[in-house]
Amino acid sequence: MLFDQITIIGVGLIGGSVGLAAKARGVAGRVIGVDRDPATIETAVRLGALDAGGTDLAAGVAGAGLVVVCTPVDHVAGVVVAAAAHVQPGTLITDAGSTKARIVAEVRGKLPPRVEFVPAHPVAGSEKSGPEHGRADLFLNRATAVVMSPFGADWERTVRVGRFWEALGSHVVLMNAEEHDRTLAFTSHMPHAVAAAVAGVTHSDWLRITGGGFRDVTRIAAGDPQLWAAIFEANRSATLAALDAFSARLAEFRTLLAAGDGAGLVRWLTEGKQVRDALGT
Amino acid sequence: MLFDQITIIGVGLIGGSVGLAAKARGVAGRVIGVDRDPATIETAVRLGALDAGGTDLAAGVAGAGLVVVCTPVDHVAGVVVAAAAHVQPGTLITDAGSTKARIVAEVRGKLPPRVEFVPAHPVAGSEKSGPEHGRADLFLNRATAVVMSPFGADWERTVRVGRFWEALGSHVVLMNAEEHDRTLAFTSHMPHAVAAAVAGVTHSDWLRITGGGFRDVTRIAAGDPQLWAAIFEANRSATLAALDAFSARLAEFRTLLAAGDGAGLVRWLTEGKQVRDALGT
Repeated sequence: MLFDQITIIGVGLIGGSVGLAAKARGVAGRVIGVDRDPATIETAVRLGALDAGGTDLAAGVAGAGLVVVCTPVDHVAGVVVAAAAHVQPGTLITDAGSTKARIVAEVRGKLPPRVEFVPAHPVAGSEKSGPEHGRADLFLNRATAVVMSPFGADWERTVRVGRFWEALGSHVVLMNAEEHDRTLAFTSHMPHAVAAAVAGVTHSDWLRITGGGFRDVTRIAAGDPQLWAAIFEANRSATLAALDAFSARLAEFRTLLAAGDGAGLVRWLTEGKQVRDALGT
Repeated sequence: MLFDQITIIGVGLIGGSVGLAAKARGVAGRVIGVDRDPATIETAVRLGALDAGGTDLAAGVAGAGLVVVCTPVDHVAGVVVAAAAHVQPGTLITDAGSTKARIVAEVRGKLPPRVEFVPAHPVAGSEKSGPEHGRADLFLNRATAVVMSPFGADWERTVRVGRFWEALGSHVVLMNAEEHDRTLAFTSHMPHAVAAAVAGVTHSDWLRITGGGFRDVTRIAAGDPQLWAAIFEANRSATLAALDAFSARLAEFRTLLAAGDGAGLVRWLTEGKQVRDALGT
């Protein structure tokens, strides 16, 4: 057991999965949840993701050794600061937000002494939302980016938070916030926009004649538009840069196809295949 | 049993799966294969996808009631015409090519009397290739586009070929060749180029920090570059049009993001989500 009590703030798909994984793996003695919706807490307790919970932030975090903020990305910084005012000295705070630099900037200078925030991002999710879609194995074999000491934190605290995400089944990758956001713009945010654009130009009449490829490419387009709009806004400049790199790459393809350059198309497709093959299935 | 003998020409992933499905479902008394590579025939016979086979086209098609051409798309028309010279009168020929209009144009006027070609496209596949990746259920619940009488064929022949693809587990969608190619440009060919472009701008260092979304979006980028270059070339103008529609749609996203238009982003993402939700999981 790493902590006597953890408190999860925001019990959606990610928060619910943190609870299920923490309980399944014996990571915490007690798992407490805080959510603005009492029905969500009820559902999560019934599904075994939480031992108990409520809507009162101060009460929920009072006994926690670790607070895990799993709200939509645009609320993370505010919730971290609010929670920090109510925790015991020595409490650690981490989060699961999909972007990091803006959160780090917004939290900077606003934490009381002896409360440390170690930002994190478990790269796991689903196009579904809500604790009812949570899974104890959501983080299994996934990467969790842990942001290195943005506040000059004691590195032992970083290790402790990293061990927590590791105990949920993920492997830890240490990054700084800017590096994280630049990378995720390419590996998550731009691909999401691309998937949504493919879906967005598809007439519903045509869906009857789609195969597995279309299903795969567009799957994440079913994600929650509010959550994703907030992610894009929080990582605007890196996402714009990734979109421009993508568009330039696709323009190369268009030029080769328009010119009837078969050998060029094979070469271009092979470059993409090599990257995808390196990832495995 | 629909046919005493079918002959599959080109025993790769698709041809091998046609054989496995035909045998598993009792669609044909005998399944014969023709491939330029004797080792491929050996593998397919060993895996139970074929009863027998060889490299000689004339011998392979001699006793067939139905010939199923499963070669790469740029070889389909030539193989259909070559096979037609060696079949018995009354033999049906179909294919599994991913584009249709060019094949129809290339075959037109080149078939002997009493041999009919009913073009088809089972919208099923995989990023893998070779008969060893074939599956008896590859076509299960997938669409097969069957091209309506491009040669003024007796419609009973169209029905008979449709029943064959149906007997392999797919559901038939009747289309004309141009409608097929315009639609597949949006639902298959453009998405393939997009997936390959996402993979192509991703540094291999970044793969450690990818999740399920990236895996899904880029999966088809692992497909065979030669096969796909041929598909793009065979459907050039419709693919270029689909790429332009996609790029215009993605440009809308870029404009909204650059302007910080959160409500606009939510609306744009919701339009894509509605299409994807209509498709189901």
